[in-house]
Amino acid sequence: MALVYLRTGMTREATFSLFVRHLPATRGFLVAAGLESVLEYLETFCLGEEEIARLAEAYRLPPVELEPLRGLRFTGDVWAVPEGRVVFEGEPLLEVTAPLPEAQFAETFVLNQVSHQTTLTSKAARCVLAAAGRPVIDFSLRRCHGVDAGMHAARAAAIAGFAATSNVAAALEYGIPATGTMAHSFIEAFGDEALAFRTFVEAAPGPVTLLVDTYDTEQAVALAVDLLRGVPAERATGVRLDSGDLAALARGARKTLDEAGLPRSRVLVSGGLDEYDVHDLVAAGVPVDAFAVGTKVGTSADAPYLDATYKLVEYDGRPVMKLSTGKATWPGRKQVYRARTLDDVVATRGEPPPEGAQPLLEPVMLRGGRVARQRAPFAVVADAHRRWVTDLDGLPEPVRRLRDPEPPTPRCSPALDALTARVHDELLPRTGAGSGPGRRSG
Amino acid sequence: MALVYLRTGMTREATFSLFVRHLPATRGFLVAAGLESVLEYLETFCLGEEEIARLAEAYRLPPVELEPLRGLRFTGDVWAVPEGRVVFEGEPLLEVTAPLPEAQFAETFVLNQVSHQTTLTSKAARCVLAAAGRPVIDFSLRRCHGVDAGMHAARAAAIAGFAATSNVAAALEYGIPATGTMAHSFIEAFGDEALAFRTFVEAAPGPVTLLVDTYDTEQAVALAVDLLRGVPAERATGVRLDSGDLAALARGARKTLDEAGLPRSRVLVSGGLDEYDVHDLVAAGVPVDAFAVGTKVGTSADAPYLDATYKLVEYDGRPVMKLSTGKATWPGRKQVYRARTLDDVVATRGEPPPEGAQPLLEPVMLRGGRVARQRAPFAVVADAHRRWVTDLDGLPEPVRRLRDPEPPTPRCSPALDALTARVHDELLPRTGAGSGPGRRSG
Repeated sequence: MALVYLRTGMTREATFSLFVRHLPATRGFLVAAGLESVLEYLETFCLGEEEIARLAEAYRLPPVELEPLRGLRFTGDVWAVPEGRVVFEGEPLLEVTAPLPEAQFAETFVLNQVSHQTTLTSKAARCVLAAAGRPVIDFSLRRCHGVDAGMHAARAAAIAGFAATSNVAAALEYGIPATGTMAHSFIEAFGDEALAFRTFVEAAPGPVTLLVDTYDTEQAVALAVDLLRGVPAERATGVRLDSGDLAALARGARKTLDEAGLPRSRVLVSGGLDEYDVHDLVAAGVPVDAFAVGTKVGTSADAPYLDATYKLVEYDGRPVMKLSTGKATWPGRKQVYRARTLDDVVATRGEPPPEGAQPLLEPVMLRGGRVARQRAPFAVVADAHRRWVTDLDGLPEPVRRLRDPEPPTPRCSPALDALTARVHDELLPRTGAGSGPGRRSG
Repeated sequence: MALVYLRTGMTREATFSLFVRHLPATRGFLVAAGLESVLEYLETFCLGEEEIARLAEAYRLPPVELEPLRGLRFTGDVWAVPEGRVVFEGEPLLEVTAPLPEAQFAETFVLNQVSHQTTLTSKAARCVLAAAGRPVIDFSLRRCHGVDAGMHAARAAAIAGFAATSNVAAALEYGIPATGTMAHSFIEAFGDEALAFRTFVEAAPGPVTLLVDTYDTEQAVALAVDLLRGVPAERATGVRLDSGDLAALARGARKTLDEAGLPRSRVLVSGGLDEYDVHDLVAAGVPVDAFAVGTKVGTSADAPYLDATYKLVEYDGRPVMKLSTGKATWPGRKQVYRARTLDDVVATRGEPPPEGAQPLLEPVMLRGGRVARQRAPFAVVADAHRRWVTDLDGLPEPVRRLRDPEPPTPRCSPALDALTARVHDELLPRTGAGSGPGRRSG
């Protein structure tokens, strides 16, 4: 497509809008993420000699056919919702304005990063809500969709406010603590739980959390507690339960720890947990001090993708829209205005905000360059975390609750409604389309 | 853990076994994948000066504490099921035998790659089954969990036998055709469907598939067919439907194409399809010539992860197992023997095969080096594809069907049963564990 645009002179400015058509049924809100990856990509991508040769080979075309693409890079603008902010259906997370071939070329990467990082960050945010103040730890790397996805899962965890990650590379990159852990294999290798625990206490640097469910959990807790009593208080972190009736075992472990005079040693639970399990344990008053979540969170198993889309909304100053059944779009460049009550309004870009409302989208890239200097990954993540904490504060219970949430449906501003109706009516005679709704059907 | 092992001299040979405890309810079989990534990693990974410094920083320890890890690399053996083969629950996909710290260190990467690539390849294989001989095209990159995952989704598609991918990089790497496509934005940019189609026909190199659901589908089909009649037959690929009542629209489009004397032009359908949708369209006799699948396939949305695990099964010649509730394991190094009927037997490594059965696991790495010379990615994928086609041939209907499949449950060989019982009984007195089942509970 980019090639056809270049060949036929369709190179005027286009605006594409990235938004989520409908939230997954289990989500009351999303937490925006992925923008930093997008900016890095747009700043650096360029189709050079080698890329052209590779494209030609892949499409099985003579390289000369692709000549117009040579030197293509991104020279446009990006407006975006900053990472960490709460967003809802139909709200643009990002709008790209650039010569049409450039904006088109960016689609795949931009959509990939924003939709999957927003998926993971929204899931991680729910875990933090479920834990109600108790620390949550990311154990997801081993089951994410690749190493890349594992890095993004840990980044999502850091934005959401997890206490630590088992992903060492991500810990360094995003400035959250790395946490080591003992696996069942450690105990099995020694073949004797007491010997394994003792060896760990003696030879492992740092905190001691003993895994107690390899053979018989109650007996292992007794063993572990005996050992923890001999360890300096700051190292005696606690015990980890990874299988069985976690509620009953946690109560038993807590009691044993307390009776041994170790009130500050923690009961950590893990083992295929997601936010629903965490919520249920917390709601039942089970004395769990920390949760480790992995597989289901790192793959966002109950909602592994978003119905996100990157749609052309304006070309050469002319607002455009799609009329496809169930997939119609709102035309034109946009802004989202938010009042305290989360009574969001999707508006045309540039129209004045409703009283007391603030804009969500900010210019982050102009003429191919970042508006703000690039910063260290951990600093970007820390800012995103602060935004999430602030937005969370304003989230009413029906929106933030984990089961059967009630996400708000943003309104359209009167100006955007009028624009949509006008563009729709103008399209009808040209396309012969039937009597559409006059606006986005979703 | 690796550090504790090195410090305390726990460096004898260990064997870890990677297997899937239970198949997702919607899966009758899995298609093994990810081994090539594992071999590349194990051949090259080494903890040098820089890695030690980074580990120390991440764990917030003085680098001297991590000194024993310096120079750690993989010097062991790997036995594995070749990529593309069909596997079932409890069957080792891979066994690593190496000094304990090395085998432990490999866990995260090995588990990540094998479990997510097997997830994606199994999903892609189901799409090919559903399409019953019609070509399937991979459109998933934009919604996969990162770029990495997108490459693996396209690789999975290539192993399964997809006809093409929209992922240009993957097309090159894995030797399958790249396919360009027209998006709705293309038509919207022109603002006039007829002009957009005409421009595409004139300016795009290669085949012409026109997207007909931007405004009014029936009218667009008529327009498209008019244009396709003027295009050389080999370029007149067809029309693509991406929304609405795909069955009705496909029937209409087929009729229009046939009436226009274009029986070889194809009706391609897309739009959030997975193997269930593909199956239903095929079963209803809808005249669809090719299917493009994306989001739900590239994220394996109905089963986005596998209950895969990497378990210590032997240390220093001693078979070991775990007794945890619901997570007990089979001890010792293993082999899987398969007879024609798919009556698989999980056996101890080295015991003779049942009559007429062939071993599934092969030695692929010995003393840290590959058994076979490394080959080009496309050649590795082509071999995996051939294995899948061969194994598919032997898959009975209850195993291969998409809804409510009946996966076989591999049997344990008598020798493995006896070993499991013996190790279990030996563990009991040492752990005080209650009366276990004497074998794997799953």
